Amino acid sequence: MYRSHNCGELRTSQSNTEVTLSGWVQGVRDKGFMIYVDLRDRYGITQLYFDEERTEKALMEKASKLGREFVIQVKGTVIDRASKNPNIPTGEIEVLVSELNILNNSLVPPFTIEDKTDGGDDLRMKYRYLDIRRNPVKESLIFRAKVTQAVRNYLSNEDFIEVETPYLIKSTPEGARDFVVPSRMNEGEFYALPQSPQTFKQLLMVGGMDKYFQIVKCFRDEDLRADRQPEFTQIDCEMAFVEQEDILNTFEGLTRHLLKEVNGVEIEKFPRLLYDDAMRLYGNDKPDIRFGMEFGELNEVTQHKDFGVFNSAELVVGIAVPGGNSYTRKEIDKLIDWVKRPQVGALGMIYSRCNEDGSFKSSVDKFFDQDDLAKWAEVTGAKTGDLVVVLSGETNKVRAQLSALRMELAERLGLRDPKEFAPLWVIDFPLLELDEETGHYHAMHHPFTSPKPGQIELLDTRPGDVKANAYDLVLNGNEIGGGSIRIHDKATQATMLKHLGFSEEDAKAQFGFLMDAFEYGAPPHGGIAFGLDRLVAILGGQETIRDFIAFPKNNSGRDVMIDAPAPINDEQLQELHLKLDL
Amino acid sequence: MYRSHNCGELRTSQSNTEVTLSGWVQGVRDKGFMIYVDLRDRYGITQLYFDEERTEKALMEKASKLGREFVIQVKGTVIDRASKNPNIPTGEIEVLVSELNILNNSLVPPFTIEDKTDGGDDLRMKYRYLDIRRNPVKESLIFRAKVTQAVRNYLSNEDFIEVETPYLIKSTPEGARDFVVPSRMNEGEFYALPQSPQTFKQLLMVGGMDKYFQIVKCFRDEDLRADRQPEFTQIDCEMAFVEQEDILNTFEGLTRHLLKEVNGVEIEKFPRLLYDDAMRLYGNDKPDIRFGMEFGELNEVTQHKDFGVFNSAELVVGIAVPGGNSYTRKEIDKLIDWVKRPQVGALGMIYSRCNEDGSFKSSVDKFFDQDDLAKWAEVTGAKTGDLVVVLSGETNKVRAQLSALRMELAERLGLRDPKEFAPLWVIDFPLLELDEETGHYHAMHHPFTSPKPGQIELLDTRPGDVKANAYDLVLNGNEIGGGSIRIHDKATQATMLKHLGFSEEDAKAQFGFLMDAFEYGAPPHGGIAFGLDRLVAILGGQETIRDFIAFPKNNSGRDVMIDAPAPINDEQLQELHLKLDL
Repeated sequence: MYRSHNCGELRTSQSNTEVTLSGWVQGVRDKGFMIYVDLRDRYGITQLYFDEERTEKALMEKASKLGREFVIQVKGTVIDRASKNPNIPTGEIEVLVSELNILNNSLVPPFTIEDKTDGGDDLRMKYRYLDIRRNPVKESLIFRAKVTQAVRNYLSNEDFIEVETPYLIKSTPEGARDFVVPSRMNEGEFYALPQSPQTFKQLLMVGGMDKYFQIVKCFRDEDLRADRQPEFTQIDCEMAFVEQEDILNTFEGLTRHLLKEVNGVEIEKFPRLLYDDAMRLYGNDKPDIRFGMEFGELNEVTQHKDFGVFNSAELVVGIAVPGGNSYTRKEIDKLIDWVKRPQVGALGMIYSRCNEDGSFKSSVDKFFDQDDLAKWAEVTGAKTGDLVVVLSGETNKVRAQLSALRMELAERLGLRDPKEFAPLWVIDFPLLELDEETGHYHAMHHPFTSPKPGQIELLDTRPGDVKANAYDLVLNGNEIGGGSIRIHDKATQATMLKHLGFSEEDAKAQFGFLMDAFEYGAPPHGGIAFGLDRLVAILGGQETIRDFIAFPKNNSGRDVMIDAPAPINDEQLQELHLKLDL
Repeated sequence: MYRSHNCGELRTSQSNTEVTLSGWVQGVRDKGFMIYVDLRDRYGITQLYFDEERTEKALMEKASKLGREFVIQVKGTVIDRASKNPNIPTGEIEVLVSELNILNNSLVPPFTIEDKTDGGDDLRMKYRYLDIRRNPVKESLIFRAKVTQAVRNYLSNEDFIEVETPYLIKSTPEGARDFVVPSRMNEGEFYALPQSPQTFKQLLMVGGMDKYFQIVKCFRDEDLRADRQPEFTQIDCEMAFVEQEDILNTFEGLTRHLLKEVNGVEIEKFPRLLYDDAMRLYGNDKPDIRFGMEFGELNEVTQHKDFGVFNSAELVVGIAVPGGNSYTRKEIDKLIDWVKRPQVGALGMIYSRCNEDGSFKSSVDKFFDQDDLAKWAEVTGAKTGDLVVVLSGETNKVRAQLSALRMELAERLGLRDPKEFAPLWVIDFPLLELDEETGHYHAMHHPFTSPKPGQIELLDTRPGDVKANAYDLVLNGNEIGGGSIRIHDKATQATMLKHLGFSEEDAKAQFGFLMDAFEYGAPPHGGIAFGLDRLVAILGGQETIRDFIAFPKNNSGRDVMIDAPAPINDEQLQELHLKLDL
């Protein structure tokens, strides 16, 4: 038996008992006549103690030679510490060691195993197994496990059945790029790894499974942006005999449960916002509503003067920056530079100071008088001491720019408190989205999403106006879940695929099995999928997902620890009937 | 709202209440003046009732036109049935329908949606979504979810952390064949899908994660035998600071919990059998011990006479068939034919009847007298009325043959009761196994398994004799789990890989990251993995796994429902830097 206790559990109540501990040497403090060793395992740190008086000489010597991250086993007696350490749970005791076994040596680790390490990202990824010994990573992984178990228990109690769907499926060129898997037994053919279990969960609904969920890996071969992974985990859910309202209530329940269970936060009812309103008020379909700074559209109160920039703009829109009147001219200039960066892309920024005396001072005083500026303040909800900032231009672009500015300012103002949680449903998404490059419409959610009742007729005439039974769950400015009520009849699905540019032949080849299934008594159904990596990170109060993934890949899709991907040998290629084409 | 209740929950206590139900039309019995419709959903069947007196004419007509598997919604009143049906939980009530909405039509399904269907395997697989509506499949999938949830709850309560390991990893030509995934972003390189998360779980131990589990898909590109799937699910577990005894106790606890929770069976302590004893007593490393019929080795009591077949045999071994003396000569001849089939491969079978009067009658009476035959009976444990059957030949072959015969006879004798559970640990497996074709040894479990203490020296001289800290958990003649204590130091791992024929270079390229990790304070560790598909099937009292997998593949690795694998298009190939080589 390697241990009787772990390194986090001994207290004064165990004083004078014999214990066996195993773990890693966090550090050694050798004072000559006495030696302290911090022994660490998953559960905590316990101080080991050796002294000249009570410890055999050979043992003292052995202890003095211990290095960082050595794996050791000790036997000894729990004793009360002379000087207690109130910072750790085991700080009232130490273990006077009578026996020490070195279970394994360690080279000096390439970075310190401390909460704040000296290791950079690359080194930490290469030695991820050492990084995981650090509390922040270890705790994040344990936190993730706790969240997933809470999800499973909640949904199982609600009679959802976790069903495993296959990983070796079929490539569909729709949507993102698939990872494919050559089949040795079926020459020249390929499986694809699922981007989501979408069609399978719909088939489970046709199969009567009624309430399905699965926590499942999904795969997308996309050029990776920061904080995207080629493999990611989804909480995938589907229900039959439901309307949108049923889905929203069910998964609001799940999310409320998680916030309570995991974060101790109780939230009564999640607000709901129409997609159109979200875009109008926040310039964004996943607004962070932990703070206000709602958009005020200023066309009416700006386009009556001679200021050409505003007059030619499709949209003039501003926000009030709380306390922003305190910004110096230099600070404001920096802000203007910030919005002009290519990542944001604004051409400029107009502002108006809301002075303490009730007057206004704007960067366009030659065009606008105090009455005009008072209206700007009114529309944006600016108060005395605030700063109104205004962007103008093409509606879609200027909304995105002002949204970026709003988030940046909130960040700077400390309004994005990671311990505060503001969930929000965004509903009535458009069914289709115009691809500006190709001029074609594609499905905003996916091709199985149903249009709002009665709107399917609009597909021919005003496709961009058709709204869908589609909804997103937004938490603190992040989309944590999204879903829709699905199409469940063959004719509508065929119409939809036609509008998405599928030939009848392609539609049949790729989704024929689903449309066939719709002919055998498909029930009305809908669902939602949560991005688990992101959800866990946000619940954990973090913005980046990487520490919540045990073995993440870098931005080139590489696992630098195991050095994958890697070449395979010629026999493997031959067996798969493949040649490299470099 | 599509339903106020499901189709399994209404009882007489709800009589006279208004309800809304949705589901599938299981069947319609139209008596003209009254119509009965069985409405089915996941939860059960409720009888709908329409009659001339109380139902509007148009509604009667609509009901009469319902077809099998139509999806409908009805509103109506719960009433007590005139003639109750004690066979279903809702058999005391029916719903007098006042409103009927057809939610979707159905073509006539290609097979009946009944417990015993008229559909063959191929048809059921092609229309798996209809097959899942059938109780046996639906219940199997729900049972699977129940088992996995019980596993997760048990292990989580025992402080195990579920950690997700990556699916896109690196190919290692050791062991079975990998499925590979070409990387678009890393030209000419491939990921591999994991055959198991073996190295990652070991790295988690190095990372201090201490108690890990994961229910995870694994992949093997093998030529499929019946009841094997290219993707399968494992309960994958690992612990640090443990010896074999700790692992056996922990996972005996898990299995005991499952048997109790899921099957209501309490088993005190699982027996343990040395691998060598298992082979000697049952000719098999996964013996079914629900029944006796242990092997009796008969060399000593057979090789003193002139019977050349026995005298030249490495092993002469028999079993007692309970009550087998009742077999006719013809039946015994058939049994002899059975063991001579190429799948079994015996050259013949000798038998000896244990007559009621205490005498014996054997097929080799010219060589063996009554005293000899009495000894055969004694060694095999045969009683009056039994039949002793004896095979002889090369030890390994004859053991396998007699094991096959033992299982076949037990099956015929009804000794393999699926409701009886006989778990068993088989321990002290050999470290290496001789590949008779190549003459090389390979790892019996895997290359990370540690030899028994002190036996590593034998590797050079008697590699086949080295025993490992490796164990299997066997249930009713099936290996449901297997694992080992791992090597945790670089030198031993290097020695092991050398003995398995890896060059130093190959070892470094493939397992370098693991051996590097062993240099940074790797703790002693070990683990086990359970085959979930098989475990669930056995707990569910079945021998085949297919109905416990929602969307299984056929023996060519094809999903016939979605028709995968399939060709991919040229652009996809180009992006992946691949050409077909057919």
